Amino acid sequence: MVSMNDIPLVYNENTLVVVAHPDDAESFCGGTIAKIVQRGNHITVVICTNGDRGSHDRQIRPSDLVHVRQKEQDQARKILGVEEVIWLGYRDGELSSIGDLRERIIRLIRQKQPSIILTFDPWKHYEFHPDHRAVGFVTGEARMLADLPWICPEFTMEGLLPWHIPELYLFSPQEPNYWVDISSTIELKVKSRLVHCSQNDFIQCDDDRQSFIGEIKARAQETGKACGCAYAEAFYKVDRTELWI
Amino acid sequence: MVSMNDIPLVYNENTLVVVAHPDDAESFCGGTIAKIVQRGNHITVVICTNGDRGSHDRQIRPSDLVHVRQKEQDQARKILGVEEVIWLGYRDGELSSIGDLRERIIRLIRQKQPSIILTFDPWKHYEFHPDHRAVGFVTGEARMLADLPWICPEFTMEGLLPWHIPELYLFSPQEPNYWVDISSTIELKVKSRLVHCSQNDFIQCDDDRQSFIGEIKARAQETGKACGCAYAEAFYKVDRTELWI
Amino acid sequence: MVSMNDIPLVYNENTLVVVAHPDDAESFCGGTIAKIVQRGNHITVVICTNGDRGSHDRQIRPSDLVHVRQKEQDQARKILGVEEVIWLGYRDGELSSIGDLRERIIRLIRQKQPSIILTFDPWKHYEFHPDHRAVGFVTGEARMLADLPWICPEFTMEGLLPWHIPELYLFSPQEPNYWVDISSTIELKVKSRLVHCSQNDFIQCDDDRQSFIGEIKARAQETGKACGCAYAEAFYKVDRTELWI
Amino acid sequence: MVSMNDIPLVYNENTLVVVAHPDDAESFCGGTIAKIVQRGNHITVVICTNGDRGSHDRQIRPSDLVHVRQKEQDQARKILGVEEVIWLGYRDGELSSIGDLRERIIRLIRQKQPSIILTFDPWKHYEFHPDHRAVGFVTGEARMLADLPWICPEFTMEGLLPWHIPELYLFSPQEPNYWVDISSTIELKVKSRLVHCSQNDFIQCDDDRQSFIGEIKARAQETGKACGCAYAEAFYKVDRTELWI
Amino acid sequence: MVSMNDIPLVYNENTLVVVAHPDDAESFCGGTIAKIVQRGNHITVVICTNGDRGSHDRQIRPSDLVHVRQKEQDQARKILGVEEVIWLGYRDGELSSIGDLRERIIRLIRQKQPSIILTFDPWKHYEFHPDHRAVGFVTGEARMLADLPWICPEFTMEGLLPWHIPELYLFSPQEPNYWVDISSTIELKVKSRLVHCSQNDFIQCDDDRQSFIGEIKARAQETGKACGCAYAEAFYKVDRTELWI
Amino acid sequence: MVSMNDIPLVYNENTLVVVAHPDDAESFCGGTIAKIVQRGNHITVVICTNGDRGSHDRQIRPSDLVHVRQKEQDQARKILGVEEVIWLGYRDGELSSIGDLRERIIRLIRQKQPSIILTFDPWKHYEFHPDHRAVGFVTGEARMLADLPWICPEFTMEGLLPWHIPELYLFSPQEPNYWVDISSTIELKVKSRLVHCSQNDFIQCDDDRQSFIGEIKARAQETGKACGCAYAEAFYKVDRTELWI
Repeated sequence: MVSMNDIPLVYNENTLVVVAHPDDAESFCGGTIAKIVQRGNHITVVICTNGDRGSHDRQIRPSDLVHVRQKEQDQARKILGVEEVIWLGYRDGELSSIGDLRERIIRLIRQKQPSIILTFDPWKHYEFHPDHRAVGFVTGEARMLADLPWICPEFTMEGLLPWHIPELYLFSPQEPNYWVDISSTIELKVKSRLVHCSQNDFIQCDDDRQSFIGEIKARAQETGKACGCAYAEAFYKVDRTELWI
Repeated sequence: MVSMNDIPLVYNENTLVVVAHPDDAESFCGGTIAKIVQRGNHITVVICTNGDRGSHDRQIRPSDLVHVRQKEQDQARKILGVEEVIWLGYRDGELSSIGDLRERIIRLIRQKQPSIILTFDPWKHYEFHPDHRAVGFVTGEARMLADLPWICPEFTMEGLLPWHIPELYLFSPQEPNYWVDISSTIELKVKSRLVHCSQNDFIQCDDDRQSFIGEIKARAQETGKACGCAYAEAFYKVDRTELWI
Repeated sequence: MVSMNDIPLVYNENTLVVVAHPDDAESFCGGTIAKIVQRGNHITVVICTNGDRGSHDRQIRPSDLVHVRQKEQDQARKILGVEEVIWLGYRDGELSSIGDLRERIIRLIRQKQPSIILTFDPWKHYEFHPDHRAVGFVTGEARMLADLPWICPEFTMEGLLPWHIPELYLFSPQEPNYWVDISSTIELKVKSRLVHCSQNDFIQCDDDRQSFIGEIKARAQETGKACGCAYAEAFYKVDRTELWI
Repeated sequence: MVSMNDIPLVYNENTLVVVAHPDDAESFCGGTIAKIVQRGNHITVVICTNGDRGSHDRQIRPSDLVHVRQKEQDQARKILGVEEVIWLGYRDGELSSIGDLRERIIRLIRQKQPSIILTFDPWKHYEFHPDHRAVGFVTGEARMLADLPWICPEFTMEGLLPWHIPELYLFSPQEPNYWVDISSTIELKVKSRLVHCSQNDFIQCDDDRQSFIGEIKARAQETGKACGCAYAEAFYKVDRTELWI
Repeated sequence: MVSMNDIPLVYNENTLVVVAHPDDAESFCGGTIAKIVQRGNHITVVICTNGDRGSHDRQIRPSDLVHVRQKEQDQARKILGVEEVIWLGYRDGELSSIGDLRERIIRLIRQKQPSIILTFDPWKHYEFHPDHRAVGFVTGEARMLADLPWICPEFTMEGLLPWHIPELYLFSPQEPNYWVDISSTIELKVKSRLVHCSQNDFIQCDDDRQSFIGEIKARAQETGKACGCAYAEAFYKVDRTELWI
Repeated sequence: MVSMNDIPLVYNENTLVVVAHPDDAESFCGGTIAKIVQRGNHITVVICTNGDRGSHDRQIRPSDLVHVRQKEQDQARKILGVEEVIWLGYRDGELSSIGDLRERIIRLIRQKQPSIILTFDPWKHYEFHPDHRAVGFVTGEARMLADLPWICPEFTMEGLLPWHIPELYLFSPQEPNYWVDISSTIELKVKSRLVHCSQNDFIQCDDDRQSFIGEIKARAQETGKACGCAYAEAFYKVDRTELWI
């Protein structure tokens, strides 16, 4: 059996979580976020789309859905203790063709100067959502490039200096190598996910709330088995900038 | 040993098979197609390119090759019992840069309202053909998005309503999790592949017909071993829309 | 234990090594290059970018860095016995958006008519450098397409005829299936890598030269263990053009 | 007063008319087309879009409108004596972003080998329709480039040899320098335009048929005044390939 | 001499002014805006860029300049009596490559339902600023297309119905055909332009304020001569939707 | 009659001439170049394409044509006294889709710091060559933007500071407002044009050399009539950076 890892060992630092849609952060790493917050870190969640097409309901207009989801996200933010949510505002489903997404993440990295960063694993097999893959690749590249002064020279000239982020954690990993015990925060994770009411019809389980809660917990339990604890979230941790020798 | 799966349990339903080139359907899932047909299902094969560059012969002109391949495909169609072939007509080798491919597949999904859909596994390692990867990604995304009313709102406004396809089967899979016993249809598969005469010089075996037949059967046998039958085709079956919790 | 492979069995032939940056060839397959040279083969290293942003030093200007790296690469070339280096000259970090990169590699393949070709494995998990993935995909596709007369018809019309490369070796492989014993050339590899002085601050080990040398050797030793020799480099060898049956 | 020109002096030759939408040919040069036909020339009208969005009627679906307009165009074709209509099938309003439009026109020029070609004047001030400008530029460029063997080398290799079109006539011209007396064909022009019933609500005159007829004639009369005849259509005639000294 | 036109005959209606940068509205049609306001109309100025690169000063950062210019624009807005300013927020100098600009203007047209619209004349010779040409073309096209239900079907589905704008006025016209007497508002125009202090070093006249004022007035006087009044602004007025017969 | 202008009043300064193809500079402003040289100025001709498709001869390969044209251009350079020719090397006919052309011209402007710049008038009616229009627009924009520090911040950071070019001359002008008397350099112009032997079959006059010479002189004479001298070249002179009030 794999030995369990602790949560990332950062205290009083900035953490960046980069996701595609409102509810991604809660779904994929909500338990870990709550633990990082408890150690006194400042967390910024960057949400690349506005989530405007995420509904099966033909009656709700995209522009209205955006407002609904902002409110839901704000509730979730408070539940987990996230200090700040930044919306990049791109349309749902179009991230893979956004030319300046990488630059915007690089700018945020240089502004926030985080110690760790969390995002999607873009190599996850059978993850068909193009926004998820796009965010994973772009964020990983942004982390690598943010440290070079001649990438985005405008930022350097503006005084946003190169910044090195030692550790990158990829959630929903293809090859997990790091587990966080979320037994103490599983209830927060569930609660923060449930407030995204507009999204609950996407869940493929019985309609009632209890079976959905059960499903979330079951997945965290299954992950927990891999590392010997009640509930866990898994990651692939990257702690070298490059593979280049 | 993995237990063998049956073929998808659909009767008298529509099935969509989305491939890149004429001969892909026969090569990758011809045996399975024949079995699905035998259950009374209606199969539509969507071929995204016209296959115009698929020849080592400098003397044959691309515009002529297109006609040759249409005739070959029509023969193959009849052998397998496929009811309809739809040609999207893009040029061979260029699918990864076609901006409206996804929309066209979404339209077809809403028009045909299939119960299952088959396409390439875009995560297959060492699959260098860019058209194969493109078709796999685009089709998987189209299946996911076809169910949302605000994706391609023009279609919704035209009366082509959102459609949910419960099951997606990826052939040539990176991580097979589903096998179809094609022992009863292996001869149809071989025959349907052989009529693509223009493509036979791509096969890397002895020139004569027998060795080619042998090679096709050998691969199906090898796959059969994984699931305990004489001949099989392997798939990765996706039966949830999203991975999103 | 996996049995060790020899080096590719080519003598007095052309070999193409396609990389993204100066220092990639030395880092990823320098030991193998030296062995191929020793068998009397002619090696051309194609470097797609000019490496102009590869520095943490804000004081060095990109246009000056280009010259520094050309000199470093020329030293490395001589150490390994590489006959020719071709610079495509694209900017560092932008390869994934270069529309004509594939065409240029196809032209080079038809001009040089190599027997084998080496490049990145674009499926390597957690390889975040977009240039590395781009070079791997583009080169693998170019190898496949260079053999078709109606791809790049201008080249065919110019007299650059279709060319088939029987063997492709992908370095930094996701699924290694081929190992080269570089015990006799490990010192050349180290030496050729060390002359890329401008890049040494990217190495995450102690600053001094000895620990860097140690790191290079440690990785080659680890690879060697997989195949039973002192030092090795690993590859995924592709020796069929297509997976297409 | 400017002296009147005759119609282009071609007999028993091919003529290409390249337009954006069904009804463009009739509206802009219908009278001239009828006269060219009367001299025994063979006319091919190339319509780049399918006209699918050309309606104020929310109830008619784009895919149905396409069929309506094909029938209308076929009636118009017969009235004017046009032998052939070729539909390129792009969507209405998107021509300016179609990457391969120029290539397709070059191919048609080499296939049809016309003596003269008619299209939009892309320099017409206050012509806001992006499809009209796109067709004018692309067709003029295609005429210039169709004569060069290394443009579209695939066509040359296929046996579609370079072709020089001595004369280009731009209708709806910014700087008219050529007028065709259409007094003998004005009724054909009117009739051919009227059969495009789906488009008649775009005409900004009284709803009844007579006032529309009056408007068409009034414009032809006004043009006629510039050259001393009852009814005329105006052009800018280009009879040199290049301005290049 | 050309007879003078009045200002557009609209009362208590919405007017849309679409420009590229803060200060464009004041510079090109500030006097006309003030007159339209005086007739009780509601004016919305849409500014496509944020003006972030519009400075010769290397010390001011683009992100700071944006804030400076917003304040300047707000002052100008109040001077002219403009009710609302909408910022689209694109970067200065990049409008010609913004794919969704036209859609955003169409949305605004359908939301605001204006009676008249003012923008750049994109045919103005020797206007080298690519943003000015882009805004002119895109806005003219948006006006034409906003009236078609199958353009931007999402908007139609959301309830933003097609809207016809009878009159379009192009300022800085290549072929003026409409003049507005701004003698009563010339001082407001000057004042509203002067508050854009960050832009005053672009003015090529003596540095002091008086000579700049003189230059603005001189140009309005020169325009006034063409139509027989003290001060005027010139336009090309388009009052047909199409040129299409 | 318009009064004749002298040549631009610059002595011992740098001049940039930006063209699309070898032979453009000689054809459009060769006489003016020779006069500018005689005043002791240093001229750099920037040729954006390599001219690889500029031949009716199917036997000559594009890659060979490039070399032929470089030799021809070098002869022409010496005849006119041009000090330096810079080749950007893009393919003939593709300039309008080159994303970084503007940046490269801006870099050259900041490096060479010219007092005047000459290029195509992109508004010239009936100039169908897309490369000519592209060079005209891009160069005019580059001149405008080269003076702003936050455009191409990398250049600024490298020490290539903003540079203002007071005067821009557009040759082959739509609205000539400036004429240069080239009576003393007409023979140099003719001679420099004649050495581009590979291009002479594009000239539409009798094949022999004399009639071609006659044609060049006839055009210069016609231009000369407009300004009262024997031979002239015409320009549109732009001496304000912006039209922006």
